[in-house]
Amino acid sequence: MTERTVFFVSDGTGITAETFGNSILNQFPAKPRHVRRPFIDTPEKAGTVMEEINATAEREGKRPIVFITLVNDDVRSMITGPQCKGLVLDMFRTFVEPLEAEFGVKSNHRVGRFSDASASREYNERIEAINFSLAHDDGQSARNLDVADVILLGVSRSGKTPTSLYLAMQHGIKAANYPLIPEDFDRGRLPTPLAPYKRKCFGLTIDPERLAQIRNERRPDSKYASLLNCRYEVNEAESMMRREGISWLSSTHKSIEEIATTILRDLRPDRLIY
Amino acid sequence: MTERTVFFVSDGTGITAETFGNSILNQFPAKPRHVRRPFIDTPEKAGTVMEEINATAEREGKRPIVFITLVNDDVRSMITGPQCKGLVLDMFRTFVEPLEAEFGVKSNHRVGRFSDASASREYNERIEAINFSLAHDDGQSARNLDVADVILLGVSRSGKTPTSLYLAMQHGIKAANYPLIPEDFDRGRLPTPLAPYKRKCFGLTIDPERLAQIRNERRPDSKYASLLNCRYEVNEAESMMRREGISWLSSTHKSIEEIATTILRDLRPDRLIY
Repeated sequence: MTERTVFFVSDGTGITAETFGNSILNQFPAKPRHVRRPFIDTPEKAGTVMEEINATAEREGKRPIVFITLVNDDVRSMITGPQCKGLVLDMFRTFVEPLEAEFGVKSNHRVGRFSDASASREYNERIEAINFSLAHDDGQSARNLDVADVILLGVSRSGKTPTSLYLAMQHGIKAANYPLIPEDFDRGRLPTPLAPYKRKCFGLTIDPERLAQIRNERRPDSKYASLLNCRYEVNEAESMMRREGISWLSSTHKSIEEIATTILRDLRPDRLIY
Repeated sequence: MTERTVFFVSDGTGITAETFGNSILNQFPAKPRHVRRPFIDTPEKAGTVMEEINATAEREGKRPIVFITLVNDDVRSMITGPQCKGLVLDMFRTFVEPLEAEFGVKSNHRVGRFSDASASREYNERIEAINFSLAHDDGQSARNLDVADVILLGVSRSGKTPTSLYLAMQHGIKAANYPLIPEDFDRGRLPTPLAPYKRKCFGLTIDPERLAQIRNERRPDSKYASLLNCRYEVNEAESMMRREGISWLSSTHKSIEEIATTILRDLRPDRLIY
């Protein structure tokens, strides 16, 4: 497919427009160029974006796809009007109307999903969770493990740190993480500080070939990165988690979003309801 | 408004359904209960969710709102059929059809937006950026600052760490961050390692009252947390950034998403196009 541009135009960050638009575009083989235009909150700014859309249409000889999340009618009409040469997909308008009918109230046309976010309890819990997860990264601290929501376990470089930070940032989950190291395998027991908290432990494992590849980027030709050692560690870690009755999954072919969602579903289904 | 439940039903993580659904619900005063049901990828699982929706409708005496991102027709029809007692908002179907017409191809009905994500270059760049940002948190390392995309500056607890991690996790931006401390103000100069990189520096400032409040949670009644000292530090930091020609914004009333988007727009507009 030849060149085509997709615009994400929003009066806020544009993250909603982009997340949603991308999940729809993923249903197609095309790999269009992406342009995000955030904070478009006046008709003037919308006019500038419209000119950019029209210039792109001219250049590419194809209608740009335009995902919009624009609440204000004067701003929106600049993009949805007949002068704009894009194929406009109006995400809000399409779904707001049936909800107005169902709720029996008018929508409040509030710009930006994050207005006042920084003052909300949920937001402050997210920030607190990030601080907790950072302080409890890689077994740094065994303090306050009683208040952790989740404790991730796994061999070095199995994906614990990004997953912990994602759980904190996106879901306000206080996620500690603990490495499983050869000393633990020699002793044949979980790291001591974790013993009282087995029920909130979750393991990450990884394909040994992939692990060796990742470790080799960090410490080439080390024993640490050797395939033989990676196989040993992964095997020992999986045996230990099986023995201790700890659920785990393999991070090899999963994104942090998928891993985090699986952990929530299995360990904290209450956090999928709020 | 009385009790009402919103379901987010997806064959993947449900993050798209939830992000998008919430941005629409934010247009209404209602505060409904949220239920996320991820990985619904068989008609059987969809049937179970349908029963949950119907039981909720019965209990609350109101139609639950159901946002779905379900690609497979057999799975989807369980929720969109006449037996389901929710108000179903079908996010994919609504927008996929106009795009099929525009692109002149059928969508590929691929389940889950993150399929194979872990193998993609973008995904690996995100993981690498998280590692970089962690290693360069709070001025820990002045190594490799030449490869940083962005360097955040600001007084302690002005929001640098969560913003850096968000930039890395969401946008694959290598974001270092550096504290501005009283020693820097005494010298009247930026921390020495940053001098060559002024053009990629971005400052965060914060309202001194809010800063004192945050610091008091950490170290109650310390000089560090006192309003007088917070006023001094914020004032000095702002003067320094002004003098050095570094852009900054106040994190006081902004979410990390808004701060990150503003930084991208101002410092790396190229990263809004890809």
